[in-house]
Amino acid sequence: MEKPSLPSGTRDFGPDTMLRRKYLMGTIEEVFRLFGFRPLETPALENLRTLQGKYGDEGDQLLFKVLNNGDFLAKAPENLLQQKDSKSLTSHITDRGLRYDLTVPLARFVVMNSNQIQFPFRRYQMQPVWRADRPQRGRYREFWQCDADVVGSKSVLNEADLTGIYDEVFCRLGLGVRIRLNHRGIFDSMAEYLGGTEQLLSFMQLIDKADKIGFEGVLKELETKAIPNATETWTFLHTTNALRTATEKLQALKNWPGANPGALAPAIAEMETLFSLCKDCRNPLDLDLTLARGLSYYTGTVFEVVPADDAIPESFSIGSIGGGGRYDNLTGVFGLKDVPGVGISFGLDRIYDIIEAAGKFPDLKGSSTRVLICPMLEAAYGMAYQLAGMLRNEGISCEVYPGAAKLKKQLDYANHRQAGWAVILGETEIENQTIALKNLETGNQENINISEIKNHLHLWQS
Amino acid sequence: MEKPSLPSGTRDFGPDTMLRRKYLMGTIEEVFRLFGFRPLETPALENLRTLQGKYGDEGDQLLFKVLNNGDFLAKAPENLLQQKDSKSLTSHITDRGLRYDLTVPLARFVVMNSNQIQFPFRRYQMQPVWRADRPQRGRYREFWQCDADVVGSKSVLNEADLTGIYDEVFCRLGLGVRIRLNHRGIFDSMAEYLGGTEQLLSFMQLIDKADKIGFEGVLKELETKAIPNATETWTFLHTTNALRTATEKLQALKNWPGANPGALAPAIAEMETLFSLCKDCRNPLDLDLTLARGLSYYTGTVFEVVPADDAIPESFSIGSIGGGGRYDNLTGVFGLKDVPGVGISFGLDRIYDIIEAAGKFPDLKGSSTRVLICPMLEAAYGMAYQLAGMLRNEGISCEVYPGAAKLKKQLDYANHRQAGWAVILGETEIENQTIALKNLETGNQENINISEIKNHLHLWQS
Repeated sequence: MEKPSLPSGTRDFGPDTMLRRKYLMGTIEEVFRLFGFRPLETPALENLRTLQGKYGDEGDQLLFKVLNNGDFLAKAPENLLQQKDSKSLTSHITDRGLRYDLTVPLARFVVMNSNQIQFPFRRYQMQPVWRADRPQRGRYREFWQCDADVVGSKSVLNEADLTGIYDEVFCRLGLGVRIRLNHRGIFDSMAEYLGGTEQLLSFMQLIDKADKIGFEGVLKELETKAIPNATETWTFLHTTNALRTATEKLQALKNWPGANPGALAPAIAEMETLFSLCKDCRNPLDLDLTLARGLSYYTGTVFEVVPADDAIPESFSIGSIGGGGRYDNLTGVFGLKDVPGVGISFGLDRIYDIIEAAGKFPDLKGSSTRVLICPMLEAAYGMAYQLAGMLRNEGISCEVYPGAAKLKKQLDYANHRQAGWAVILGETEIENQTIALKNLETGNQENINISEIKNHLHLWQS
Repeated sequence: MEKPSLPSGTRDFGPDTMLRRKYLMGTIEEVFRLFGFRPLETPALENLRTLQGKYGDEGDQLLFKVLNNGDFLAKAPENLLQQKDSKSLTSHITDRGLRYDLTVPLARFVVMNSNQIQFPFRRYQMQPVWRADRPQRGRYREFWQCDADVVGSKSVLNEADLTGIYDEVFCRLGLGVRIRLNHRGIFDSMAEYLGGTEQLLSFMQLIDKADKIGFEGVLKELETKAIPNATETWTFLHTTNALRTATEKLQALKNWPGANPGALAPAIAEMETLFSLCKDCRNPLDLDLTLARGLSYYTGTVFEVVPADDAIPESFSIGSIGGGGRYDNLTGVFGLKDVPGVGISFGLDRIYDIIEAAGKFPDLKGSSTRVLICPMLEAAYGMAYQLAGMLRNEGISCEVYPGAAKLKKQLDYANHRQAGWAVILGETEIENQTIALKNLETGNQENINISEIKNHLHLWQS
């Protein structure tokens, strides 16, 4: 018989991994709640017309599509079948697909429930998404997104909250990060200088490669393009970015003739407010004027979070672990106009990998079995279950070993489970109404009268 | 533009619903942990060869199948396309499907990781599953299962733990239930009397309808079948079931000539141990000799949980809200022999519906925003964020209203969010370094000096 396997790009999460994932997700969720966000969950299955056309041509290719049930070929056009035209046939045999991100489902939810929702709507959502991407190290076909968004408010105060969430989460996780910020309005103010909107977009696309090919690499590529003032603008952004504070950078922008002052002013004002409200953040906040990631679809602030240099073990290169931004027209694709949104996302899988590589997961033993009760003979079962009931009533996680196996086997199991204590119930113990209590860390063992167990419970609580 | 919609049989869970679902799942999870079970999660996408042939012909029909990516028709046999043979074509264009339950993925996980797993393996799993069933009231195409299983132990002590979990969860939820138990071995002991294994299986299938068609209905149907001693056996089971205690019922079985004593003895012994270990359960435990549900694939104990009569509002008819059983050969379908398992499942969606209908959800306001900070002018933003930071440091969930909107609008929002308190920051407050603190339940308002806020924090903690 063939050994079973997993589809490429998917993973099982066994108990040890799950406890750590739950710690991460629990930490993020607790902070979301602290900032007044509330949970939303949407189905894994969405209608394909909800998903298609929202993620560009590449995204449409990467959607997982679900075959219609029943006689799915009945209504399929015969010529497409004859021509084996997979692409055109798809829409005739699939109506549904798997969620590709959490933002489009949020927009759909808001449109379908706009009468019931009280705006601003602060929601968080932590669910898997699916993309038929080529799997590679750190890239999966089923992976988790943890998003927080505010829908229905244009105020930059929301950006301050989202920045605060990033800061608080990574402080709690003990992982130093840099929070990078930029604003689409700053780029828009240069559109004229660069020859128009089209040129601006290709300029942004090019400088987005700086992480990979460096300042000089971008410069070289810009030289080959017919974008007016491109190299000068790039040099200005690069130089200005080296200034120490956001205030200095914003001042330099104001003094730079390439930026249209009228278009620039609102973006500058928002950045000033944001940096002023976030002055107490414990992680460094960078105004990164070269950050263009996602700015082709975001319309205001854009966020990116990267691990601080000293947080990552050497030879462990990883990209951003969070990102987001503002979009003026979240629900426009579904016909509901003028609903702005701003949101951030945590890259759960990458955060997991970094924290594990840095050895920063806390000891999570306490969330598993604390006490293993070891019956040495069948006659001890009743006593074992009575004791288990007593411990569980006190909130102490425990197990009865299922059967009167040899002590060594039972203790091996207890050690494997990282239990702190074993309670051994043999013939003598039943006769004397005592228990043999073994501390599995020290190996010490003592006999305790059953009536005195209550005095020991505090030892077992985690 | 067409209004967006959800696929039939799927649901969004908005914030109020999610908070209640999280309360349910959190309660179940906490009890699983208390009993020493640890979490597992498996991917939504499984290879179809993992899923197919595991749930019977009907199950195979109800699997959601995912279209292969790329040019999926390239290798499809042309004759199947010409004949529009949907059924035969499926295996050529789909390799993966959506998880149908949590038991087959558990078996697959155990087989793939049998070298690393320390048995007995106690795992819980709470994830959605998908079935292309016809949607109707209370039946969804995407729904949640919450399972706990013990793999690798034949001892009935595991059944005692699983019974204890049911008892503890429904006690915590304040929902009275009846826990029904039966044992496949009891039926097996009647196989000879009923004319053989085949006859036994059709006997079990028929009496499983008793919930719908009653004792007389089953009797009538049995009369038409060529199963020896069927009506007599059914009458015996029905009559014996009316006895008061499990002990009396088991005694009656022992005395009944239709049961083969050798085959019956181990089943009786297990039931006696189980009832004796579970004598402290607070919900009634019924040995239900007519319970045949699932016994065609379970091999030992079978569980079913139904709401107690007085727990359900009138005119709210609902079936079982939990079930499970023992299977001697969990992993045999994947080629790993002799791995026994026993498990239970909670029907989350039905439990939700009952608890909601019975009005038994607790007040979950405390898990949302406690304090809304209301800036009445832009100059108050800084003070608002300082205060928010102070409250969040104390673990108090709060929001700053995003913008200096009119007070009425801000207070409407606070009330909608069920916040307990509003902090109003206007011009006077900034000047005097005070806050106006409004109790949103009583409407009382007082002015507090900023330096004294620390003395009020206890009011806001939930």
